[in-house]
Order: sequence, then C-alpha cells, then structure tokens
Amino acid sequence: MYDTTDTIAAIATPLGESGIGVIRISGSKAYDVGDAIFQSKSSLPLAQRRDRSIQYGLIVDDDGKAVDEVILLIMKGPRSYTAEDVLEIQCHGGRQSLSEILGLVLRHGARLANPGEFTQRAFVNGRIDLAQAEAVMDVIQAKSAQGLTSAVSQLEGRLSRVVGDMRLHLTDFITRLEVTVDYPEEDLEEIEVPDIAGAIRDMERRLDDMLAESKSGRMMRDGVMAAIAGTPNAGKSSLLNRFLETERAIVTDVPGTTRDVIEEWISIQGVPICLVDTAGIRSTDDTVEQIGVRRAKEYMDRADIILVVVDQSRPLQEEDRQILETAKGRQALIVLNKEDLQPAFKTEELQSYGLPILSISASTGAGMGALKDAMLSLALKQGLTAAQSALLANTRHIELVRQSREALQRALDTIEAGMPVDCAIVDIREAWELLGSITGDTVHDDIIEEIFSRFCLGK
Amino acid sequence: MYDTTDTIAAIATPLGESGIGVIRISGSKAYDVGDAIFQSKSSLPLAQRRDRSIQYGLIVDDDGKAVDEVILLIMKGPRSYTAEDVLEIQCHGGRQSLSEILGLVLRHGARLANPGEFTQRAFVNGRIDLAQAEAVMDVIQAKSAQGLTSAVSQLEGRLSRVVGDMRLHLTDFITRLEVTVDYPEEDLEEIEVPDIAGAIRDMERRLDDMLAESKSGRMMRDGVMAAIAGTPNAGKSSLLNRFLETERAIVTDVPGTTRDVIEEWISIQGVPICLVDTAGIRSTDDTVEQIGVRRAKEYMDRADIILVVVDQSRPLQEEDRQILETAKGRQALIVLNKEDLQPAFKTEELQSYGLPILSISASTGAGMGALKDAMLSLALKQGLTAAQSALLANTRHIELVRQSREALQRALDTIEAGMPVDCAIVDIREAWELLGSITGDTVHDDIIEEIFSRFCLGK
Repeated sequence: MYDTTDTIAAIATPLGESGIGVIRISGSKAYDVGDAIFQSKSSLPLAQRRDRSIQYGLIVDDDGKAVDEVILLIMKGPRSYTAEDVLEIQCHGGRQSLSEILGLVLRHGARLANPGEFTQRAFVNGRIDLAQAEAVMDVIQAKSAQGLTSAVSQLEGRLSRVVGDMRLHLTDFITRLEVTVDYPEEDLEEIEVPDIAGAIRDMERRLDDMLAESKSGRMMRDGVMAAIAGTPNAGKSSLLNRFLETERAIVTDVPGTTRDVIEEWISIQGVPICLVDTAGIRSTDDTVEQIGVRRAKEYMDRADIILVVVDQSRPLQEEDRQILETAKGRQALIVLNKEDLQPAFKTEELQSYGLPILSISASTGAGMGALKDAMLSLALKQGLTAAQSALLANTRHIELVRQSREALQRALDTIEAGMPVDCAIVDIREAWELLGSITGDTVHDDIIEEIFSRFCLGK
Repeated sequence: MYDTTDTIAAIATPLGESGIGVIRISGSKAYDVGDAIFQSKSSLPLAQRRDRSIQYGLIVDDDGKAVDEVILLIMKGPRSYTAEDVLEIQCHGGRQSLSEILGLVLRHGARLANPGEFTQRAFVNGRIDLAQAEAVMDVIQAKSAQGLTSAVSQLEGRLSRVVGDMRLHLTDFITRLEVTVDYPEEDLEEIEVPDIAGAIRDMERRLDDMLAESKSGRMMRDGVMAAIAGTPNAGKSSLLNRFLETERAIVTDVPGTTRDVIEEWISIQGVPICLVDTAGIRSTDDTVEQIGVRRAKEYMDRADIILVVVDQSRPLQEEDRQILETAKGRQALIVLNKEDLQPAFKTEELQSYGLPILSISASTGAGMGALKDAMLSLALKQGLTAAQSALLANTRHIELVRQSREALQRALDTIEAGMPVDCAIVDIREAWELLGSITGDTVHDDIIEEIFSRFCLGK
C-alpha cells in the first residue's frame, strides 16, 4: 500500500517572491530526472557525483532554453531525509521559475508527491518512527519558543524513548504473568503477582504525570485561543492592532467593518496566543455580517479566553449586556476600552458579571501591560505551566496514553481481585499496543495515511 | 560607501509553513557564526570543511538546547553567489524555527542584510554587472514563461553583451574622431567622417529595433493590466472567479460586497495578465465603499485593458451608461454577463460606445474562450508581440537606451552639418556613458542603492 518504488517531487518552500525556492525529488530515478534537465560544466551523471555535494548550473527545457540558474543538492540514500536518493533543486524563489521547473521534473519521470509523502517515506523506510514524523509538522507549525523546543525534542526521539522504555516494562510484566499461567503448579503467583501489581501502579503514576503535563504541552503546541468579542465599534479591531502594533485590520468609523474573522498570533512571555477578532455581535439583516456573527459566537464557544470589549465612553447597551451574559462563568475578562475618554457609566454596573475588569485605551496603549498579565494568568489557571518538559502535546498521543492508562487499571483490578491472570494479560497487551501506536510500531495504515495527509506539501 | 567588510544574514525563503526554510549568511565571518551555533558529528571548523559540501547537524542555542535539525551548505568565495564566503542554513520552514535561528546568527556576529544586499555584493565584487543584478529580481517576479525566459537571458548576460559590444563601437568612433581633431593637418576628415556618420546611423537602427520591441518586453515582464469594471452586482467577482476557476473572491447577493481591490494573475497563451476586480462603481455614502470606488476609478485609468461588465438580464442603468462613457475610446471590451438569462435590453443600445461586445455567462462559463481571445488581441494591438527576443523590458534600461539614441542623433546632426567634431565627440561619449549605466560601468551610487532597495529580503 505504500508505494515507494516511484520517484516523487514537490515544491518545498512557500509560494511567494523570495531569494530562494526549493524543489525536492526523492526516489530511485531522482538523478535521472536531474540529468535530463540540468546542464553544468561537468558532464558526469549526477548519480556519479559526490554525495552531499552542491552542483552549480542551469535548468534547461526540452528545447534547450534556460529556465533558471540553480544549485543542486545531492544527498544519496540511505543517508538522506527519506533514506532514498534525494535531489534538491534550489532556484530563484518566484512562482514562474518554481512551477516551470516542477513541470519539467514531472515530465521527466517523477510523480507529484502527496502532502507529507517525503516524511512518510522516511517513516516507511525506518529512518524515523511515527512520533518523530508527527514532530516534523509540529516543528514547522510551532507558535512559540517553548512549542518549538518541545517539538524538536520529540523529533530527536525523546517521547519515543520514554514510550519504548515503558513498552519494554510491559513486555516484562506479560512474560512474568505468563509464567504463572503456564506453570501454575510452581505456585509462583503468590510471589510474583504483588510485585507486578506494584510495578503496574508505578507505571500508572508515570502515565499520570505525563497526562498532567499534557494540557500544558497542548497549549504550548496549539496555542491559547483568545476571542475578542464585543458590540460593533467597541474597538475590537483597534485592540487587535494595538496587540500587533500594526495595521492588520482595516479600522474605520463605520460599525460592522470587520466582516471576516481575523486570526493573529502573538506571544506573551513565550506563550503562543491566537487572537481572534470576531465580527461585531449584533442583530443584523445584512447577509455578509450574519455569517460573521454566527462565526463569532462559535469562536467564543471554542476559545480558551474571551476578551469582552466594552466602550466605556457610551452608555451600556442591551447588546453589551447580552454579550457579557454569554461570557459569565467562563474564562473571560471585561476590557473597558477608551479609558482616555469621559466614562459614560459606572464600573460597578459590571461587577454583577463576576469577571475581572481592566481599563485600557487601544488608541493610546494605556493598560495593555496589565491586560497581557491578566490574559497570561487566565491561561495559567487552565493548566498552562512553564512546561518545556511536557512529553505529550499531540491530541492523538494524549488519547493513546489515556486509553493505555485505563487498560492498565483494568489489569490491576483483575490482579487485585484475584481473578485469573489471563484477563490481566489481555489488558496489559492492549496497553502495550496502544503505546506502540504512538511510535507507529502497532498502528493501522489508515491512521498513518490520515496523519500524513495533514502535512504540508513538499515535506 | 559599500561596506562589504561585515557579515550579513537574512531569511531567503518566504514566510509560511513549508518543508524547507533557508537562512543565508555571507561575509568573512560566515563560518565563525556557523561554528558558534552548529553541532554535528564532525568537530572540524566549517571553514576547513570541503567547499560546496552539505553538512548535517543541529542548531543549538547558547544553553546548548536544540533549536532545529538542519543541513548547512558551504559555498566558499569567490565561487559563491556573493563571491564571498557563503553559508546557508536549511531548516524546517516554520516561522518559529527561522526566526530563532536568525536571532542566533545575528547574536553571533552577523548583521541583518538590507533588501538585495547579497546581490549588491555580487555586483560590487564584480561577479555580475548591474543589468544582471536587476535580472535577478525579474526572474523572481516573472509572471509568465516568456517573462522568465527574457529575465534568465538577461541574467546570463545577453543584454550586457549587446550593450558592451555597442560601447566598444562607440569607443572606436570616438578614437577615430579624435584622430581628425588631433591631426587636422593630415586632412583625414574627408575620408573618415562620412564612414562614422554611416556607422552611427547603423547603431541608431539597432537601438531603434531594441526600443520597438521594448513595449512588448515590458508587457511580458510587468504583465498586461486588465481592470474589471461595472455596477454593483453586475457579476465582476463571479467573472474573476470564472477566470481563476476558484472561489478567491467572496460572492454574495448583497451589492457592494467587494470592498478591497483584488488583484489576481492569469496567463493567456503565455501572456501574464493581472486581473483587477474593482469595487462596484456607484454613488454611495458608505465610507468604506467610497475608498473602494475611488481606487476602482484609479485602476481604470492605469489599466491596459478595461472589461466593462454589464448585466444583460436587467435594464441598462444610468450607472452602466456612466461607466461605458468612461471606457469609450479606450482599450475596452463590453462584457455582457448572464447570457444564460432572458435579456432585458437590445445589444444595439450599446453600439454607440464603439467597443467590441462579448456575451458570456460567468456562472456557466459560456463565451469565456472568445473573451480571452479578445483580451489577447487588445493586448497585441498595444504592441505586444511574441517577443521572447526583446532585449529591453526594464523601464530604466529603456529610458537609458532612448537617451543614448538621442545623444547619437545630436552627434550625427553635428557631423552632417559639418560642425567641429569636438561637439560630436561629447555627444558620443554621453551615449557611451548612458549605455554604461545599464551594466553599471558608469552609474551613480544613489541609483545603485535605489535599484537594490527594491529587492526582496534575503536576495
């Protein structure tokens, strides 16, 4: 099902104008493809040139016309990213050059790679395990310094080693339990079983520790989502701009300007926070805005933190109260904007909502420091720690560890109830398999396909 | 004024999530910077490793923490892009990884490069001339196959060779004219001068040929700009989507949805065409839309081609007539949209505008082929030829050639009027200097600065 006999190719850099663009080719015909389109002073076939060398020349089309000046990177298997013969073409980073060269590469025998197919080959060829392969996308998508550190350590195999060690222990438990099944006459049970129960409890504690840190790991990886809610014209876009210190959102004095939901990433003390500027929530007959409003409410439901922006320079409106009511009891902050203007109502009016109240001015920047601190402490309340050490960040891994923990508990219950150890062995074997799914030792092909389908092209 | 003693660094790939990101470092300390942050199996300093080799390892921060798994490209001067020692770091293509590695590179002795500074060094160090340096950005920004071919041929020095050859001839003219000045007693004038006049006329013809093709070259390089104009809801966004066969613009049934001017590139038979979807032109009190309408009119003024979209399923409105009036006498097409619906007026009503009329349906795609043909023939009317051969595409070069042509004409007039050849020599020398500005042999520093300032970062 994993066809690794053909040669794959894809653009591996983002599209856009830049100095450098890279096309990656992997497979047994990589150098034949290169020979068909590359011209340089040397006429030696690429396969015979030095491994890990850089070659300068021109890419030429079938009419001999120069398409671009390039360098080639020769990285022969198995010492390459995919463990196959890899050729990288580094050209000028424009769309036209990249697409013409890719076209030539495909016409000369390569097939367009699926998303993640290079990394999938590295996995299938045994260079990395599944947890390491998943870490590749986490490195690329890291939103903060901590998130990157955690992803790189997973890429280097830290999680894989811990999981591998646990699975060795589980194999040991199974072996020892099997002895009591196979040789009941030896009456080993009384000696062995309490030891194994203790050992299982130890492992449960290790899994519990991993799970306890995982929420923090997930936040570091996926970021803390902060929805900016409020009535039209309360200053949501201005607040976003103040966070970004740029003019990302178009700010005008027309209510209802923000029609699309805008997402921007900031980092508060190394914690990645995704700010979502939602459309002004209000009753409206305007079709475009209605879509925006529905999405804004959805974002509030999904957010880790909600910032309710209220304009304190005008009296509280019915719509302000509705939004505040929605935010009540959640991880929300009331952000009183326009503190540089004359207040139109008393702050006491808002105390019934039981939410922290912060006064700021998006236009002058006053109060922004305190607001960021309050956002960070809300995030910490939800389980965020300065956990560079969190082993688990990926939802799939967390779920597998949780299920593995449950299977061990069933085994423990069986043993402690003095039931036949055969049942316990089944559960321990299940825990062993679940952990193996993390590294891909025991995993269904469709799960592997699904994991790699979420990769970006060219990786 | 060109400080090339320090070491510069920049991200050379576009920002965005992708398989590969590249940071480029150039200068005498490039390998020292690399040694400070790179860890690999070999402990050999990078400067002592093989030229044009690829090194695998980790980038580590000052605490020894792994930041990313990378490969390094070692390209020692003078056989490198800048003709200096170059080190490229190829890491995972995420923002966090790229920005952390760039931060480390800058902390360890490199300075952030200005836009175009790598190419500027290649120029200052004499590896390429100015026309070739300018071609680098043309390659990156190429909008079509033809534009790329022309830019790559300039990068390879085709224009430079032609210009260099012409300047040699001009030097020859000057020498021969100077002989008649220095040795008037020899009475060479009668023999030499008519020959030189003929030679100047030959060169003028060559310059004329270059200029005649230049409009085509410029269109291939910069693209043909097509403004899509029309009243709200005439179907401008749907037409754009039909061209793109995607859902780039948000299409709703609310008039005035398109607030921002949207630019998209398509290629019709290899000709790059920039489609500009302008906001519906109409009287409006809405602030956001007014900005859009003003910009739409500006785009119509600047466009090479105008497509006036008229909804033929409703009676012609006053606003339709106003827009058609604006388009009259320009390179415009009337695009009758919604041909799949019952027509509400007779096509004859539109004939008074003297513009070609095409009937299409953006929703079914009917008539799109004929529309593209008509657009292409409008572009051809304006000087576009299938001119892969055009030497001139860059406005600066065109202007220099034009001025050079004028200076030669002045010299010719002087000679033919039998005036003292000293005056002719001044003009020929000016022509020689003007052509030299193309390749950068004779050019002011501020012009060079200005040229490189338009480059993208990392090039």
